[in-house]
Amino acid sequence: MRIEVVNTGTELLLGKVINTHLGFFGQELFKLGLRIQRQTTIPDGDEIRTVLQNAFSRTDVILITGGLGPTNDDLTREVVAEMLGHELHLDQSILDSIEEMFRSRGLKQNRSNDRQAMVPEGAVVLHNPNGTAPGLYVPADEKAGSPHMFLIPGPPRELKPMFLDQVVPQIKSLLGEDHQIATWRNFRIYGVGESTLANEMEPVLEPIEGLELGYCARLGEVDLRLIGSDEAVDAASKIVREKYGRQIMTESEDPIEKVILELLLEKGETVSTAESCTGGFIASTLTNVSGSSSTFHRGFVTYSNEAKTELLGVSPDLLAEHGAVSNEVVAAMAGGCLERSGADHAIAISGIAGPTGGTKEKKVGTVHIAIASRNEPLFAKKFFQPVERIAFKERVTRLALDLLRQRLQGFTLD
Amino acid sequence: MRIEVVNTGTELLLGKVINTHLGFFGQELFKLGLRIQRQTTIPDGDEIRTVLQNAFSRTDVILITGGLGPTNDDLTREVVAEMLGHELHLDQSILDSIEEMFRSRGLKQNRSNDRQAMVPEGAVVLHNPNGTAPGLYVPADEKAGSPHMFLIPGPPRELKPMFLDQVVPQIKSLLGEDHQIATWRNFRIYGVGESTLANEMEPVLEPIEGLELGYCARLGEVDLRLIGSDEAVDAASKIVREKYGRQIMTESEDPIEKVILELLLEKGETVSTAESCTGGFIASTLTNVSGSSSTFHRGFVTYSNEAKTELLGVSPDLLAEHGAVSNEVVAAMAGGCLERSGADHAIAISGIAGPTGGTKEKKVGTVHIAIASRNEPLFAKKFFQPVERIAFKERVTRLALDLLRQRLQGFTLD
Repeated sequence: MRIEVVNTGTELLLGKVINTHLGFFGQELFKLGLRIQRQTTIPDGDEIRTVLQNAFSRTDVILITGGLGPTNDDLTREVVAEMLGHELHLDQSILDSIEEMFRSRGLKQNRSNDRQAMVPEGAVVLHNPNGTAPGLYVPADEKAGSPHMFLIPGPPRELKPMFLDQVVPQIKSLLGEDHQIATWRNFRIYGVGESTLANEMEPVLEPIEGLELGYCARLGEVDLRLIGSDEAVDAASKIVREKYGRQIMTESEDPIEKVILELLLEKGETVSTAESCTGGFIASTLTNVSGSSSTFHRGFVTYSNEAKTELLGVSPDLLAEHGAVSNEVVAAMAGGCLERSGADHAIAISGIAGPTGGTKEKKVGTVHIAIASRNEPLFAKKFFQPVERIAFKERVTRLALDLLRQRLQGFTLD
Repeated sequence: MRIEVVNTGTELLLGKVINTHLGFFGQELFKLGLRIQRQTTIPDGDEIRTVLQNAFSRTDVILITGGLGPTNDDLTREVVAEMLGHELHLDQSILDSIEEMFRSRGLKQNRSNDRQAMVPEGAVVLHNPNGTAPGLYVPADEKAGSPHMFLIPGPPRELKPMFLDQVVPQIKSLLGEDHQIATWRNFRIYGVGESTLANEMEPVLEPIEGLELGYCARLGEVDLRLIGSDEAVDAASKIVREKYGRQIMTESEDPIEKVILELLLEKGETVSTAESCTGGFIASTLTNVSGSSSTFHRGFVTYSNEAKTELLGVSPDLLAEHGAVSNEVVAAMAGGCLERSGADHAIAISGIAGPTGGTKEKKVGTVHIAIASRNEPLFAKKFFQPVERIAFKERVTRLALDLLRQRLQGFTLD
C-alpha cells in the first residue's frame, strides 16, 4: 500500500511551527508494516488542488492534515469535494457536537463554524472529541481516479487520538484480512549507536523469515523495533536479549524516568540527586512522570563549591585537592546526598558543560557520575561527552539515570 | 522569488528524525523577505529525479537537503548532474579537506568518500568545515530549464552554518541590488497570545508602508518580527514598545535565561531557586546558558513537605494551615531560600502539575510563585495553567523566570 502525506499550513513553511505529524504518522504506520513514500507541505489556500491532482495516480492512500478550520483559507474539504464531483451537505451531528462543545465552555457559537459541519457525499465523519473540526474519510473513487483520503485536523492533540482511534482501524480494514498485522516489540537499548546496532543485529536477525527491523536513535539510546509474525518476533527477541542484556533499558516505549519510577515503587525505595553541571535537570527529569512524589522527595543543585560543602558536606580540602570535577568529589556528593536526604539511592554529577571552563587535563565534555545506595558499594566513574552545552546536559542526564536503572535492576556497576 | 525545499531522507518518512530544517530555512528566509512555497520529503534514492523534474518549471530556487553522503543511496549529486547534462569531475580541494579531517581525527580515509568530492561542471563548491560532504550551488541553467539549486548536507550542525554563511549570501546576490534587504527587529513578548497580538497590532501596524509582520508563538511568549525599511521598522517599534512595555522580554532572539543572566551580571547579583512542582527545571533552565555559574550558585528541589521544612525552614504549621500550594508557603520558601543561599534574589514555586493530585479547591494546573529580593517587597501570586504535566512544568518555569526578569528590569510586580 503506497501512502503519501500532505501537510497544509503556511505556519510550517514560515518556520513558526515544526512538523511533528510526519514523524508520528511514520512511526505508527511502521507498526502496521507500512511506509510513507512522500510528504509535501503546502501553504493554506488553493495549492492543495495541484498537489492532490499529482498524487492521485501514484498512491493508494493520502493523509491530509490541516485546512479544516473555520477560516477562509481552510479549503481542504471544499477542494476535495469539488475534485471528486461530490456535493457537500450539512451534517447535523457535527453541528450539534460543535454547539455542545461551545456551550460546555460557556462560549457563544460562531456561525463560521458551520463550514466545519459540511461533509462531501460518501465521506465518513471522523468525530473530534478534542476540537471543533471533524476529520473525514473519503473512500477511493474510481470515477474520479482518487485514492483513499483521510482529512485530519492539524492541532496535534486533536490529530493524534483521531489518527490512532479512527484512521488506523480504517487503514487496517483497507489492508484486508489477508494482511498480517504484524506483532511488534520495542527494545530501548542504552549505550550503543544506531549504526553499531545495525551492524551487529542485521547479520543475525535478517535470516529470520518475516521479520522487519526498525530503528530510532536519540540521546545515547536506540529503539530497536522488531516487527513480524509472533514466532519471528519471539525468536529475534531472544537474540536481542542475549546480546544486549543489561543494556536493555526496557522492552516498551516508556521513558527512562518511568522505568526508574516503577522499579523504585516495586521496591518501596526513594532516590535523591546532587547536581552540579546538570543544574537540576536530573531531578526535573525524574519528576516528569506522575507519581514521582512517592519516590523522589528532594534534590540539591550545588553549582558552586561552597554549595557542595554547605549542602552536601563535601570537604573544602577534597575540593581543593581533586577539583570539583573528579570521582572523589562526586563520591562525596553522593554520600552526603544519601545521608542528608534519607533516600535509599543518590545520584551525584559534576562536569564541564562548556563551551568555556575546560582545561588541558579536564576538557569540556568531561563528567563524573556517582551512584550511592544504602546497601551497595559506592560507584563513581568518569565519562566524556564532548557535545554542545544543552545536548551535554541531556546526554549526561540519560547516562546518570541509566546507571541508576542498572543498579535498580540488580546489575553490578563497574 | 519562488523557493521550494526538497528534503531527502528515509529516516524522515519513518519518523526516526523530525524535520527541523524546514523551520530553520523558513525563519531565515523570512528575514530576507522571502517565503518557501512548497516543501517535499522523499526517501533516499532515485525519487529525487521526479520531484526535481516537476519543480523545475514552477520555481526560481530549490534548496535540497541530504543525499550527499558516501553511501549508495546518496544520489542527489549524480541525479542533478545527469538532469542538467553536466559532467562530474573530481575536485581535489574537497578531497584534500576530507583527508585532512580524517587525519586530524586519527582515522583512516575511506575510499567511499571520494564520491563526495565529485562536482558537476559549473557548480560552486560550498565547503563544509563541520563534516565530510561539501554542499554545492548549481546555478540556473537555461538550456536544461533548471532553477538555481543549493545542495546542502543533512546533519543540522553542518547544514545550519553552511546555509547562513554561504547559501544566504548567494541568495542575496541573486536577489540583486534592487532588492531591498529589509531591516528586521524581533520583539519577544510575554503573556499575550498570538491571535490577541495579531488583533491588537495589525490595525495599527498595517497602515505603515513597507512593513511586514511575522509571528512565532511558543510557551506563553510570542516573537513579533517587524520587517521593512529602517523607517517603517522604527515607527512600528515605537508603537509596539508603547503598547507592550514591560511585557517585552527582549528586543532580540535571546532566550529568557540569557536575558536574566545579562541583567544579573550587569548588577553583579545572584539568584537561587526553591522548587516544588517544577522539580529543578527552573534551575536547569537558568544554567542552560554559559556563564551562569557567576549568577547562580545553588538551588533547592523541595518536592516533599519535609524537604521544604528542612532545607528552607518552612514551618510545618504553615504547611498544615495553608497547604504546600499556597501564597503563604511559596513566600516562606522564597524567604528561606534567600536567607540560606545568600543570593540577591530567590524564586520559589509550588503547584499541582497533575494529572493526579488536584482537589476541588486546588485544581490541577494551580501554581503559586514567589519572588524574594534583598531590597524589594516579597511578591507571591497564584496562577492557573491547566495543561499536560510536562507542558505545565515548562510554562510555569517561563512564568517564574519572566517575573524575575521584570523585577530585574525595575518593574514593580503586582
